Amino acid sequence: MIQTDLCIIGAGPVGLFAVFEAGLLKMRCHLIDALPQVGGQLSEIYPQKPIYDIPGYPEVKAQELVDNLMEQIKPFKPTFTLGERVDHLEKQEDGSYIVTTSDKTQVHAQVIVIAGGLGCFEPRKPVLDNLETFEGKGVTYMVKNPETFRDKNVVLAGGGDSALDWTIYLADVAKRVTLVHRNETFRGAPDSAAKVFDLASEGKIDLILSANLKEISGNGKLDSVTLTDKTKTEFKIETDYLIPLFGLSPKLGPIADWGLSIDKNAIEVDTRDYSTGVERIYAIGDINTYPGKLKLILCGFHEAAIMMHSAFKYVYPDQKLSFKYTTVNGVNAF
Amino acid sequence: MIQTDLCIIGAGPVGLFAVFEAGLLKMRCHLIDALPQVGGQLSEIYPQKPIYDIPGYPEVKAQELVDNLMEQIKPFKPTFTLGERVDHLEKQEDGSYIVTTSDKTQVHAQVIVIAGGLGCFEPRKPVLDNLETFEGKGVTYMVKNPETFRDKNVVLAGGGDSALDWTIYLADVAKRVTLVHRNETFRGAPDSAAKVFDLASEGKIDLILSANLKEISGNGKLDSVTLTDKTKTEFKIETDYLIPLFGLSPKLGPIADWGLSIDKNAIEVDTRDYSTGVERIYAIGDINTYPGKLKLILCGFHEAAIMMHSAFKYVYPDQKLSFKYTTVNGVNAF
Ligand SMILES: Cc1cc2nc3c(=O)[nH]c(=O)nc-3n(C[C@H](O)[C@H](O)[C@H](O)COP(=O)(O)OP(=O)(O)OC[C@H]3O[C@@H](n4cnc5c(N)ncnc54)[C@H](O)[C@@H]3O)c2cc1C
Ligand SMILES: Cc1cc2nc3c(=O)[nH]c(=O)nc-3n(C[C@H](O)[C@H](O)[C@H](O)COP(=O)(O)OP(=O)(O)OC[C@H]3O[C@@H](n4cnc5c(N)ncnc54)[C@H](O)[C@@H]3O)c2cc1C
Repeated sequence: MIQTDLCIIGAGPVGLFAVFEAGLLKMRCHLIDALPQVGGQLSEIYPQKPIYDIPGYPEVKAQELVDNLMEQIKPFKPTFTLGERVDHLEKQEDGSYIVTTSDKTQVHAQVIVIAGGLGCFEPRKPVLDNLETFEGKGVTYMVKNPETFRDKNVVLAGGGDSALDWTIYLADVAKRVTLVHRNETFRGAPDSAAKVFDLASEGKIDLILSANLKEISGNGKLDSVTLTDKTKTEFKIETDYLIPLFGLSPKLGPIADWGLSIDKNAIEVDTRDYSTGVERIYAIGDINTYPGKLKLILCGFHEAAIMMHSAFKYVYPDQKLSFKYTTVNGVNAF
Repeated sequence: MIQTDLCIIGAGPVGLFAVFEAGLLKMRCHLIDALPQVGGQLSEIYPQKPIYDIPGYPEVKAQELVDNLMEQIKPFKPTFTLGERVDHLEKQEDGSYIVTTSDKTQVHAQVIVIAGGLGCFEPRKPVLDNLETFEGKGVTYMVKNPETFRDKNVVLAGGGDSALDWTIYLADVAKRVTLVHRNETFRGAPDSAAKVFDLASEGKIDLILSANLKEISGNGKLDSVTLTDKTKTEFKIETDYLIPLFGLSPKLGPIADWGLSIDKNAIEVDTRDYSTGVERIYAIGDINTYPGKLKLILCGFHEAAIMMHSAFKYVYPDQKLSFKYTTVNGVNAF
């Protein structure tokens, strides 16, 4: 079991900055995110887009902001569990919590910080009979570790950046990559699309355009995918994996079941310290709501700072918090 | 009279960022600060010190943050009145306000945003008989416009950066510069101190160390300063100006007289919108207080964003505010 002072659910910009504010008060953090990477909406939805309202940054690309936050929190050595969803919170007799993820990872923490944004990003799934039967048995919606696909046959489906990027990446790893897309053109970055067309014309991948997934089959494990093309002709491809990459959409998910007061998919908090009403559980960033709330990154930063000054008492019940400016006290790594 | 949507009192980091948040909602700002430069505590007290808790900046020098904020608000063309203290607020019949400064500059605004930090920086004054009699008549505590001193005799007093920097600068402007300091060494930057010693040994300035101001005299206008040196010997210097630069310390000042609810030198606000209880007057940054308040720059940024969404109704009473991400909508300069 992972032991930590604070377990932060969600490694979006707000969860990340919370590590810094915790660290200033000498509190350690473990972060869990359902996505395989940190950065929340910024890394998942708009990594290359510029943001203009981060104070002091006339312009900063979303991924650059995430990278800078990772750099800023480094002195406080946060630990991460990525690609796992937090499903359960269980209160212990001494008031602390045990958190359990979808993959049964457990974290024991004094304080829970929910920085879950719009909720868990859940994959948009194709409509196929028996899809659930093959999940984890050949069908997957996320590339957590590309090595899984080494020397395997892989069918990817989709037309956005993820589909293009993973096609390019896996072309060198898998035995054979097939990319299926329902249109003739791609939504993703033009240079990635050009690269995919090149790989196809060099014969390094199979590119099947204007085609749709029709059927999947196998015996306990996926072994083939059937497609239809624009003439409605069906054809079957033998494969070890099918990776539909049709984008992710956030869903509040398990957070709704933790006994917190929820209003319109957000957790109601007290603005004095962004506590949820359940002792030792705080909610910051897009996941919370209060009168006047704005779903802005800079607001989540403020909430993180205020929240930590309240959480301190649970981690150091016998100490008085002494507040010093970073300019005066510096950043004391641990 | 200057006409604007919002009059922001205080051009510290929070007042500056408020311009950006106002600009996103198409509201224009005029800023007034008692100091001759923008940046508040950052520029006045610790311009060269690194700050570590600005989100997304593992490290940023205070003055660099101020410069970046100035760059960020440029599209919204804020206007400034610097070196003047706001003394009076006067409510108009239609609910708007007229602001009057110490130099009688007047600004007419729909909304007042007090971002006054720890208050007005007031000069620390030497203890001298008749000091007040000569203020504005040869005695001044701030160099607003160096040209005032062209071809004049100037005595500066102090040992910090301001005293050193202005000695160096005025050496080329004034007829004769004398720097008086009570110690043998300077508190200011070593290279500035070295430069001052060089100027003195080249005969370009007079440097009088281990000496104190004793007396000032003149007939309606300053004409001489009397010093004592370490042997208690007195000597008199004829001069047009005396500029004591003993540092500035913030005082709440006139803000205390505007009928707002004050607790421990700060204005009590409602965290739903950082309003003061007096309609159309908001308070953000170090100057406000509420349960859980932290005097941090990043908290002031949040307060500025929330506040502007509330102030919008006074500037555009007939419009519904539509909130768009900068990433989606960009920054529309005006
Ligand atoms: C297109 C677009 C443009 C935007 N532009 C701007 C802008 O210009 N300025 C601005 O300030 N904001 C902007 N935003 C909003 C900004 O992205 C959000 O305010 C910000 O991402 C909130 O950060 P967060 O850390 O609270 O949540 P998120 O970034 O949503 O991160 C939350 C994380 O929690 C994880 N999570 C949730 N539930 C669980 C669970 N049960 N177990 C494990 N992990 C979980 C999610 O996977 C996610 O990674 C924009 C948003 C979009 C979509
Ligand atoms: C040494 C030191 C180190 C610090 N380190 C950090 C740090 O690491 N991190 C952090 O977040 N914060 C730090 N701070 C605090 C930070 O500087 C303040 O939170 C910040 O300056 C507040 O910004 P502000 O815009 O609200 O007010 P200020 O910066 O105080 O600006 C207010 C301005 O209002 C003006 N004003 C006031 N009254 C009037 C009036 N009547 N008329 C005209 N002008 C008026 C003043 O002249 C001043 O320029 C530090 C402070 C100090 C002194």
